[in-house]
Amino acid sequence: MNNFNFYSPTFFVFGKERENEAGKYVKRFGGSKVLIHFGGGSVVKNGLLDRVKKSLANEGITFVELGGVVPNPRSGLVYEGIDICKRENIDFILAVGGGSVIDSAKAIALGTLYDGDFWDFYLGKQVEKALPVATILTISAAGSEGSSGSVITHENGMLKRACGGDAMRPVFSILNPELTCSLPNFQTACGATDMMAHVMERYFTNTKNVEISDRLSEGILLTVINEAPKALADKNDYESRANLMWAGMVAHNDTCGVGRDSDWSSHQMEHELSGLYDVAHGAGLAVMFPAWMKYVMHHDIMRFAQFAVRVWGCEMDFQNPEKTALHGIECYEKFMTSIGMPIRFSELGAKAEDIPILVKTMGLGKGTVGSFVKLTEEDVTKIYELAV
Amino acid sequence: MNNFNFYSPTFFVFGKERENEAGKYVKRFGGSKVLIHFGGGSVVKNGLLDRVKKSLANEGITFVELGGVVPNPRSGLVYEGIDICKRENIDFILAVGGGSVIDSAKAIALGTLYDGDFWDFYLGKQVEKALPVATILTISAAGSEGSSGSVITHENGMLKRACGGDAMRPVFSILNPELTCSLPNFQTACGATDMMAHVMERYFTNTKNVEISDRLSEGILLTVINEAPKALADKNDYESRANLMWAGMVAHNDTCGVGRDSDWSSHQMEHELSGLYDVAHGAGLAVMFPAWMKYVMHHDIMRFAQFAVRVWGCEMDFQNPEKTALHGIECYEKFMTSIGMPIRFSELGAKAEDIPILVKTMGLGKGTVGSFVKLTEEDVTKIYELAV
Repeated sequence: MNNFNFYSPTFFVFGKERENEAGKYVKRFGGSKVLIHFGGGSVVKNGLLDRVKKSLANEGITFVELGGVVPNPRSGLVYEGIDICKRENIDFILAVGGGSVIDSAKAIALGTLYDGDFWDFYLGKQVEKALPVATILTISAAGSEGSSGSVITHENGMLKRACGGDAMRPVFSILNPELTCSLPNFQTACGATDMMAHVMERYFTNTKNVEISDRLSEGILLTVINEAPKALADKNDYESRANLMWAGMVAHNDTCGVGRDSDWSSHQMEHELSGLYDVAHGAGLAVMFPAWMKYVMHHDIMRFAQFAVRVWGCEMDFQNPEKTALHGIECYEKFMTSIGMPIRFSELGAKAEDIPILVKTMGLGKGTVGSFVKLTEEDVTKIYELAV
Repeated sequence: MNNFNFYSPTFFVFGKERENEAGKYVKRFGGSKVLIHFGGGSVVKNGLLDRVKKSLANEGITFVELGGVVPNPRSGLVYEGIDICKRENIDFILAVGGGSVIDSAKAIALGTLYDGDFWDFYLGKQVEKALPVATILTISAAGSEGSSGSVITHENGMLKRACGGDAMRPVFSILNPELTCSLPNFQTACGATDMMAHVMERYFTNTKNVEISDRLSEGILLTVINEAPKALADKNDYESRANLMWAGMVAHNDTCGVGRDSDWSSHQMEHELSGLYDVAHGAGLAVMFPAWMKYVMHHDIMRFAQFAVRVWGCEMDFQNPEKTALHGIECYEKFMTSIGMPIRFSELGAKAEDIPILVKTMGLGKGTVGSFVKLTEEDVTKIYELAV
């Protein structure tokens, strides 16, 4: 196990109707003038935004609203949010939505306390401070409600880049599983895929002797495999929504990642896909992961066999562990198909002829991506080809 | 799943030689005059205390020392610590030791900011504020390095009582698994037992549909079952020590307890044992748990069967789930014996004739203890009898 720091200071407020406590917690965590940040009209139509505003008003907290966040959130709205926060002396940002809204809020929080261009942080500048961000989560997926990260797409070149730092962890997050019941099944499935990806990026590691984080990772994967089909079969099954919602948080607050190298190359390959085609992040991951697995599995057959046996309940083939490893990947693909996810380029709307563009935009040059296997541009090309 | 809050804000600093960063973190978390609290001579003899003091001095932090904490920590030293903190204007407490030292430090932190008797909090008074406490952990067991709780024995009557509150969560905790390599095997085994107990108190619940915390719980138990024997076989096996150390934290920062009722009756029955006989907490738990399990298993045979199958790898007896449930309890007992733990009164030095005293000291009266099954004095008596 590697040395590590673990810090997940977010105060989580979980359960039915908890969004009505938003005002109480904004006050407790020091907010007095709030930017409420959200996406499209659904939080307006379903009354969530009104309930939140009422809760803030009850505590005497004033606010400004900024909606319009889109999936794969863009830089333009971030710049607008930063302008508002500086002009209006906002001291607290409340994100009401899913991962895109929260990531956009984190970017605004960073940029408001910085004199330069917020994009500097997404190009590698160290994060030191940010306005406090809190969240009211409406989609179980990205884990941004407990994570230190944010992913933004810059409209100049449609570059999708990530940035992270403890100052960006939400001070509190309200998770009400009821709010996720109205999601279309496709989005619920994308969310389940994203959670699983967050675990798997950490699970496939070269670090030895990481039993505790292996077992916790497997527990989260088993939960998603068990609960996602129930949520898809019955939209209003609160219990499966609740299990998925907490699984999504634990999958990405680094509970699974402590003390080990993690990979993230599948995420980077997916970022290029969703940057170019604007496909759903989860759907892109469902396509990239099996291709990546097949390409790298020989690097550590026994780790893939462990994944197959412990997560998918495959029988271990002691004569031929490679067969077990492959069986696990097949199980992953079958599960993805069963929840309505694409597993190939064609299902996603991606095109084989665009592979050189995807590879070039990644900008690896002579460098590599990933840690489990360090992938060159040639490797990445072959993985995209496996996904066709 | 029940509604819940989850808050684990401690900054964890994990790995080899990390105790040398103590000064840096005390400074970061606002300490300027520190009470270093510790137990017996081992941290003096092995040089740990000197390294910590050097680290503090390097940052210009002054300190006062208070050693002498004993297992099942006592009220007398707590009162002494509170006097010192008030007299010397201490603003930060650094606990260097195991759960007893940390629990004693938390009690001092509570009492220093309170005008009355600190024991009030252990009799049920709500915790609101405390001096910041940080820890340098030397024993993987109690989980106090990440928990909100503290257990103290009052010398007036040898009453062992618990108290909890978020203000008592350590601001940072340094976990260096190397520090645990010198422990006698008996203490390592007691620690493993304690971790398992922290998980099991939460695992046996009446709350339905808690797959995510079930799976995380099972992951921690599987880790301890896998790693404890390795640590006992080779004292200097860093990797098993590391896995155990992190398992001990996760077992008790409430990762396993979110959204569910938890029981704690075995802990309460054990508290009476260690209060009367001053036996090691882990050893007492190893004795009480199988007795409790056998007494309550019929309340939910399928939960005990799940425990047997998922944690102990038992084959499910579909004709007779009760056999599977019993098999799981037997596996627990065998595992305890294999790591050198007692599983009956006689091995512990407890006496059947003292059972009425144990029951009386618990002070249930007409009330009950526990949540999975609400136990009356009569039930508790029968459970103690099963442990004989």
